[in-house]
Amino acid sequence: MGKTDTGDSTRMAGLAKRNRRTFIGEAAGGVIATLAASKAAAETLADVPPRMMGAPVSGRSERSSFAELSRIPESTAGKRNVAAADAINSKTPLQSLVGTITPSDLHYERSHAGVPDLDPAKHRLLIHGMAARPTVLRVADLRAMPSFSRIMFLECSGNGWENWKAADPSLTVQNMYGMLSTHEWTGVPLRALLDMVGRTADARWMLAEGGDGSGMARSIPLTDEILDESMVAYAQNGESLRPAHGFPLRLLVPGFEGNMSVKWLRRLKLGDQPFMTRWETARYTGLMPDGRARQFHLRQDVNSVITNPSGMMHIEPGYHRVSGIAWSGHGKIEKVEFSADGGLTWRRAQLNAPVLAKAQTRFEVDWEWDGSPAKILSRSTDEKGNIQPDRKTLVGELGTNAVFHYNAQQTWAVDRQGRVTNVLA
Amino acid sequence: MGKTDTGDSTRMAGLAKRNRRTFIGEAAGGVIATLAASKAAAETLADVPPRMMGAPVSGRSERSSFAELSRIPESTAGKRNVAAADAINSKTPLQSLVGTITPSDLHYERSHAGVPDLDPAKHRLLIHGMAARPTVLRVADLRAMPSFSRIMFLECSGNGWENWKAADPSLTVQNMYGMLSTHEWTGVPLRALLDMVGRTADARWMLAEGGDGSGMARSIPLTDEILDESMVAYAQNGESLRPAHGFPLRLLVPGFEGNMSVKWLRRLKLGDQPFMTRWETARYTGLMPDGRARQFHLRQDVNSVITNPSGMMHIEPGYHRVSGIAWSGHGKIEKVEFSADGGLTWRRAQLNAPVLAKAQTRFEVDWEWDGSPAKILSRSTDEKGNIQPDRKTLVGELGTNAVFHYNAQQTWAVDRQGRVTNVLA
Repeated sequence: MGKTDTGDSTRMAGLAKRNRRTFIGEAAGGVIATLAASKAAAETLADVPPRMMGAPVSGRSERSSFAELSRIPESTAGKRNVAAADAINSKTPLQSLVGTITPSDLHYERSHAGVPDLDPAKHRLLIHGMAARPTVLRVADLRAMPSFSRIMFLECSGNGWENWKAADPSLTVQNMYGMLSTHEWTGVPLRALLDMVGRTADARWMLAEGGDGSGMARSIPLTDEILDESMVAYAQNGESLRPAHGFPLRLLVPGFEGNMSVKWLRRLKLGDQPFMTRWETARYTGLMPDGRARQFHLRQDVNSVITNPSGMMHIEPGYHRVSGIAWSGHGKIEKVEFSADGGLTWRRAQLNAPVLAKAQTRFEVDWEWDGSPAKILSRSTDEKGNIQPDRKTLVGELGTNAVFHYNAQQTWAVDRQGRVTNVLA
Repeated sequence: MGKTDTGDSTRMAGLAKRNRRTFIGEAAGGVIATLAASKAAAETLADVPPRMMGAPVSGRSERSSFAELSRIPESTAGKRNVAAADAINSKTPLQSLVGTITPSDLHYERSHAGVPDLDPAKHRLLIHGMAARPTVLRVADLRAMPSFSRIMFLECSGNGWENWKAADPSLTVQNMYGMLSTHEWTGVPLRALLDMVGRTADARWMLAEGGDGSGMARSIPLTDEILDESMVAYAQNGESLRPAHGFPLRLLVPGFEGNMSVKWLRRLKLGDQPFMTRWETARYTGLMPDGRARQFHLRQDVNSVITNPSGMMHIEPGYHRVSGIAWSGHGKIEKVEFSADGGLTWRRAQLNAPVLAKAQTRFEVDWEWDGSPAKILSRSTDEKGNIQPDRKTLVGELGTNAVFHYNAQQTWAVDRQGRVTNVLA
């Protein structure tokens, strides 16, 4: 267990104290230097803008006109600025976010036949196959059942694929890692539903099928871990799912590739072997160096990325509080290390408490940039001992034909002008 | 420590298993009976609506047209359906929410001179008074400093005041408890900022002043707890604060009455005694039975409320999964108990993991309603041993002249017709 993995007040106090020490330690060369650019040593309100009358209170709190935020819709080939009708995904602006929770309307989106807005009164979930009591459930039936909530990440298995072969220096962290988000999800435990329909003892696989036009359907292995942790969800961050995220029902399989968490869920079919849908034969397989395809490589491995500074940003010499996120489909993040010399030397970053299993973990670390060319990167380790590989190790294992499950350490180069760009290593 | 206070996968597995046992135990009389109303025993997709093509992906995920949500703006006297210009607060729709995180645009709102949309490039924070190095900070200065994030509740000290004297049976849980929300907040540790300006040893109080038109200003006692846990925040649920919640800066004092977490923060002034602003003399005091006013009763005490079923709902006889929230400004929730007979007998509810200090905790409990009149209520206990009082005990202590800090157990009466209404006890 890490030192920052509980959420109680003692721990928060510890965090505040550690931050204080670090902060004070860096203050002379860092923050205070920054402050010199503003008016220091003031003793009156003369430099603070006057009070301001406001708009009326409202039914919903919209964003400031000074702080608009949105995702980037992209087409299949990763083309940006495409017409909405040509887009297949929409990526979370990680470079603009802090903490770990993703705002409700900015969770990443990926669909294969657009976004249906299903009528919850008409929607049904069929559970059948190797079951004693096949059943059709209404959304209201599920909402009346015992539920649980969990803060967890979802990640598209294609997240980060851009660097398999070459590094495009124009890419931002949003372009490369924006298919990753964290919400609190609420729903009915999968195991309870399968017990209810009388799953037979040899039903070790489950087909999950969506009600969108694409017929997205995936085979889910019914391991104890998946049975214990999965849910049929109806809510995100406290409210009903939004259409882009599966309204009114979706499956959630924590720690595994995002498309297994099938949206617009209409069917769960139990079987004793995988169903071999086109999604797991023609797609979502890993092409290996020898030309054969690896199937059912489902777990999202240990990963991390520095979000600030990151691709296409510009920084000044001096003190920087580097910030990023780490996550692992295996469990909790144990530690994150930071290197400013391309991976030659490393030091440990601070993790924000509480560190939750299979959720994004925010890390921060102090860095004094001297103005000479640098390569900054992070490396995460999870509680199961998995260490995020460097690119060479990952490519040595999986080759460069693969599209999915890229989790190599992400290097950002900083040149003498302070320009931050994506590089391979 | 409660049994459900960690967030690891083992615990989630335990939760799923407990839910399963409870669920199965109740299934015969409860959920399965509900299911009889739907089509059971289906084995094909005949009863499931056909697949549906969707709208294009987007930059932001809007709500379903079937699941619109908003707060209720109210005037000073608690009048509903007032014109926006007459409203002073806007309450979170707790009856429609599950889990613990409040959607980013539905966090409750309370302002004293409307909602300014301040320009972050021009905004400044002055820290002065009993300090060696009085300082003016830009928003960018704060964003460059070490930060931390915390999931915590905020609650207006007036939350629940409607029941001090009499019970209006037309009130919903949103009307009565909607000045309560939970977000993940991110900002700079207060202690680090006060160390930076060189707080003198006898500066045990701090004035926090907002930049809105009302000049909201509160005296904050600088206890170790408050120094360790407070922050000057710039983000909510990962993104910049929204104007209604203090953009670009606000103070956050976890566990204490909401208006101490001053929004549109422009000044922190250090002193050796409270500043006696009109907000803590004319307002936000507790009028006692003898006519004197209690000042600086600042902590939000242990509390809980059943959100489903709740006021103005209608229920049918049979199985119900009762759901609600518990919270305490003292720390973690230790347990929540449920009574269906007006407080004569109690049994323990399940708490959702992880239970975080000074954050909302979701509870659930099974209840079989036999159709006869009932009074349902919840009672929470926190890790410090504080027990939520019944109304008689609270009124015995504080009288009925008080307006703030009402935390009595909330009773919902259910009549033979299944109508759920607010009653005193």
